[in-house]
Amino acid sequence: MMNKENSLGVILKPDERVDDLHRNQYKIIQNTKKFCFGMDAVLLSGFAKVMSGERVLDLGTGTGIIPILLEAKTKGKHFIGLEIQEESADMARRSVAMNKLEDKVDIVIGDIKEASALFGLASFDVVTSNPPYMTGNHGIVNPREAKAIARHELLCTLEDVVREASKTLKPNGRFYLVHRPFRLVEIMKTLTEYKLEPKRMKLVYPYVDKEPNMVLIECIKGAKSMIKVEAPLIVYKEPNVYTDEIYDIYGY
Amino acid sequence: MMNKENSLGVILKPDERVDDLHRNQYKIIQNTKKFCFGMDAVLLSGFAKVMSGERVLDLGTGTGIIPILLEAKTKGKHFIGLEIQEESADMARRSVAMNKLEDKVDIVIGDIKEASALFGLASFDVVTSNPPYMTGNHGIVNPREAKAIARHELLCTLEDVVREASKTLKPNGRFYLVHRPFRLVEIMKTLTEYKLEPKRMKLVYPYVDKEPNMVLIECIKGAKSMIKVEAPLIVYKEPNVYTDEIYDIYGY
Repeated sequence: MMNKENSLGVILKPDERVDDLHRNQYKIIQNTKKFCFGMDAVLLSGFAKVMSGERVLDLGTGTGIIPILLEAKTKGKHFIGLEIQEESADMARRSVAMNKLEDKVDIVIGDIKEASALFGLASFDVVTSNPPYMTGNHGIVNPREAKAIARHELLCTLEDVVREASKTLKPNGRFYLVHRPFRLVEIMKTLTEYKLEPKRMKLVYPYVDKEPNMVLIECIKGAKSMIKVEAPLIVYKEPNVYTDEIYDIYGY
Repeated sequence: MMNKENSLGVILKPDERVDDLHRNQYKIIQNTKKFCFGMDAVLLSGFAKVMSGERVLDLGTGTGIIPILLEAKTKGKHFIGLEIQEESADMARRSVAMNKLEDKVDIVIGDIKEASALFGLASFDVVTSNPPYMTGNHGIVNPREAKAIARHELLCTLEDVVREASKTLKPNGRFYLVHRPFRLVEIMKTLTEYKLEPKRMKLVYPYVDKEPNMVLIECIKGAKSMIKVEAPLIVYKEPNVYTDEIYDIYGY
């Protein structure tokens, strides 16, 4: 297959497609074989709060879904998506261009572990991350494969993400994380070790009678210990039918 | 008012009444002005697992509700309820006698802070606790009042409870705690500091669209970090109508 220009004037590479984000008529390029965002990123963009004029950094931005959605949903001033995989970052940049967001969203190629060296200490009001969830590399055939890098802690650990979030945040800055509930104890321990105090948490349950498969956490750098656990977020009313809350977050 | 003997042959003091526990025809004495158990204790007794032959300690047993319910629901060998308030312990003892459980359940008057000195190190398979939830004494008129002592950390702190639970548990022993979600970060931090690793957690939401007001946690002493967050426990289907799960735990 060859690269082709679609009707939006965007160059698409093989296996890429353009999806509608249902916000500001924004669209995003995805590659179904390599880089696709999940519900996790969309729910994090609905959970995160960005105030007028704030500067936001997304650690491990992938397709750029989080900065693009946050630009659409909030009055934040500027958004940076940091991504180590060049192919993914290139796709994210083309999505930014397609939505004419070059003045608002920058996609930077680089390593999460060096975020504070790249951007400086205390330089953001908000940091977001939908990091790799899985420790170890059990079941991975090719550790260089794009999906393996996005899902497993091959190039960075939870501690790397939390440490760099803490360093790049201003005092009282906010960190928004989506992760898997089975690592909750380790997540809270790591966050508090780096002075990111969890202040708000929401568990995402696929059905009202099932275990949660995601946890959304808001931390405030340097805050006192006291957390508000929010009402549950239930994804499905019945098979294939989202709850109203999910439709609302997705913007349908 | 004078003490009176009721139809069960039990001496009741003023303001005391006998309630049915809907388990093994057990009953319990409560004093509506001083010592009443809440849903918290009942849900903890439904969440806790006690295996055949195990020895169980309940820290701060109040009316004795947790050991009495666990004796009814499980095949545990022996249950001790530790309570610092003499009046409450006396009531719990009369409940034990009323149910003819003197061979299975002991109510001991003593201080949670001295539990490991009283009972010895590594002497229980299971420890349970429904401790005071509130820090500080804001709004307390009389810090000697029974309800104030049961609800506020006047005579013991969360750390005291966790430390004594850890000391009195055998290796791989299990600690079951019910508490308020707003202290979740501190709870997890304290538990892990004392080698009680949270392995199972359930949030209790009064309604499906409301914030949780209780959290149930199972820890295993010395275990590795990995937690199973369970399906939500929703209390009410609609005002004044419990969900089936609650009716089941209450034994109706």
